[in-house]
Amino acid sequence: MKIKINENFKNIKESYLFSDIAKRVNEYKKLNPNADIVRLGIGDVTLSLPKLVVEAMEHATLEMGSKDTFRGYPPEYGYDFLKEAIKSYYKRNGFDIDMDSIFVSDGAKSDLGNIVDILGNNEIYIQNPVYPVYLDSNVMSGRHINYLECNEANNFKPTPIGLDNEPKVIYLCSPNNPTGATFNYEELKAWVDYAYETGSLIIYDSAYEAFIKDGSPKSIYTFEKAKYCAIEISSLSKMAGFTGVRCGYTIIPTEIEASNMSLNKLWKRRQATKFNGVSYPVQRAAEAALSEEGMKENLKNIDLYFKNTKLICDLLDKKNIFYSGGKNSPYIWLKCPNNMKSFDFFDYLLKEAGVVGTPGVGFGTAGEGYFRLTSFASYEDTLKAVNRLEKLL
Amino acid sequence: MKIKINENFKNIKESYLFSDIAKRVNEYKKLNPNADIVRLGIGDVTLSLPKLVVEAMEHATLEMGSKDTFRGYPPEYGYDFLKEAIKSYYKRNGFDIDMDSIFVSDGAKSDLGNIVDILGNNEIYIQNPVYPVYLDSNVMSGRHINYLECNEANNFKPTPIGLDNEPKVIYLCSPNNPTGATFNYEELKAWVDYAYETGSLIIYDSAYEAFIKDGSPKSIYTFEKAKYCAIEISSLSKMAGFTGVRCGYTIIPTEIEASNMSLNKLWKRRQATKFNGVSYPVQRAAEAALSEEGMKENLKNIDLYFKNTKLICDLLDKKNIFYSGGKNSPYIWLKCPNNMKSFDFFDYLLKEAGVVGTPGVGFGTAGEGYFRLTSFASYEDTLKAVNRLEKLL
Repeated sequence: MKIKINENFKNIKESYLFSDIAKRVNEYKKLNPNADIVRLGIGDVTLSLPKLVVEAMEHATLEMGSKDTFRGYPPEYGYDFLKEAIKSYYKRNGFDIDMDSIFVSDGAKSDLGNIVDILGNNEIYIQNPVYPVYLDSNVMSGRHINYLECNEANNFKPTPIGLDNEPKVIYLCSPNNPTGATFNYEELKAWVDYAYETGSLIIYDSAYEAFIKDGSPKSIYTFEKAKYCAIEISSLSKMAGFTGVRCGYTIIPTEIEASNMSLNKLWKRRQATKFNGVSYPVQRAAEAALSEEGMKENLKNIDLYFKNTKLICDLLDKKNIFYSGGKNSPYIWLKCPNNMKSFDFFDYLLKEAGVVGTPGVGFGTAGEGYFRLTSFASYEDTLKAVNRLEKLL
Repeated sequence: MKIKINENFKNIKESYLFSDIAKRVNEYKKLNPNADIVRLGIGDVTLSLPKLVVEAMEHATLEMGSKDTFRGYPPEYGYDFLKEAIKSYYKRNGFDIDMDSIFVSDGAKSDLGNIVDILGNNEIYIQNPVYPVYLDSNVMSGRHINYLECNEANNFKPTPIGLDNEPKVIYLCSPNNPTGATFNYEELKAWVDYAYETGSLIIYDSAYEAFIKDGSPKSIYTFEKAKYCAIEISSLSKMAGFTGVRCGYTIIPTEIEASNMSLNKLWKRRQATKFNGVSYPVQRAAEAALSEEGMKENLKNIDLYFKNTKLICDLLDKKNIFYSGGKNSPYIWLKCPNNMKSFDFFDYLLKEAGVVGTPGVGFGTAGEGYFRLTSFASYEDTLKAVNRLEKLL
């Protein structure tokens, strides 16, 4: 064909991280066919859905089979019953959110990727290391990317100190994927103040907020000014085990304006044109998951994951290995001992302990020399891995 | 805020079609509180899901509640079991589709809207009247729009005759929404030949193909050359009553290339970045709906809708009113009698017969003087409306 394609796709770096990991593991298995490999690289939940969530989804599915209760197209922005449940969940966490500012989606990744549609040619600021969606979706749009370096010195939490005063679009994720680093009140306040003063927009990914235990902000709307300069995108994936069910939500306060246009209205228009709403049974499942009873069940699952996290953190503390995360996050981001590079440490753990994790360099140049472990394996497997690492490190 | 927004949004025309209709109906109701209004403007299915589809979705929902059968993130491009079911559905219709060319989505609207992400600044050709998504998604991207005029003379089926030989992006929908017009073999072949010869891309919306009864092409891949110049986007919404369940699919043949890039690979990259796959229970429901047994049940529902269509078409035939659609489509697109304008005819039907339809002008300038009726109301309501119209027209 002779039509023009989006040439920006040529600037996207292919990531071979997971295929590279698979290749190394397969080679190891070929040489050691009886090796008992333990996987602590999993970025996906493994515990099943609470009973009341399954029942709500089952009930709604049965409704679709009867003419009197059948439902056709859902509202593009979500059923009111689910928006009420989201509002009420925020209320219980201490936040007042307008119904009109809530948009239900099929997951945070879709909204984080599609939000570029309503924005112009801004300077983009993302953390390094970083969840790749912020980077790749902006490269696809031909945007110029700037990195907020994260390192041991800033505990993997960048500050706005030293940035110029031009308006910019800033992606923040707290608790962070992949580093698990979580902004405290003062740290996050500094970002909101900076955005407010410079006319910048913060796109705040709070997908892991349910893991926060130490009183750190669970929402960007902890700060009054945020409703003039921040969009919050979140998900039930990790909070409620919804990775396979698919539901998330985005909050765009009606107060946010740029170029005399309401961002809330722009997103409404975008979604009405390019999205047709979330499956009805999925929305009923999400309503149940966000109820008081549902969240109790979700937090039980999160506590089970935290038992694994603790095993890993205790080991790292004992071995005096630097790490971020683990406290408010299912992710533990550790510094490879002896200044090893990420992939060298990967090979070392695989060969000497049969443990698989994720090389930090896969999340950006600033991840070189670091390594990610997660708490999503079973307790037995995590314990087995930790015992082997205890001997090795 | 001082950030830049996507200024193209300022060029999108707000559509007041459905709010305008609601306003007129409400005013009428206020003046005639006891009026028995019949709605033949519905663009959504009303019959419930077949039992085997509900059972498949219920079973998958229960799987999510047990640790041994729980599933996390689905593959971004769809589970193989559903891709196999789509492949097999095409096979039964006489088409060989590669597994690798199939992308499962949450509905045709998402893919039709998002496909612009992988394309460059091409000249866009859309039918007039038109399903608004093709228009608005391209205006949002700042593309230049060209219209393929549809009218009584061409039976609402435009031809490529008279177009220049520059490569372009052409949106075709057959059976068409809103006109119901359906390309026959020769008519569609002319478009594929034209696209192939000029290096153009056809984006083919086949969401209503299950309604085709007269042997007209059910897929753009009826034509061998299409795999070098056409993307097919479809949906279970109307075919299987999935408007509230949300599942569709897009076929991008691996053969299609532009600018030395594979469109299939570009879309893979786009979806891996901005989409996280479709809910597992929804995919199991779709698998059941596309099975041989499932399609038998779906066709029973479609036959029920056709009973309504026939009532309307018989009346129009008797009254000698021009219309397109109805034969292979749930939509009937009729010429307003006595050269009435679309909204005048709307008011006339509402006031004199208590029947609500959709003014054709709402779908574009070429829809002025036309009117859309649909077959999604109940048989009783459709009969009631037809009896009233018989007396009136």
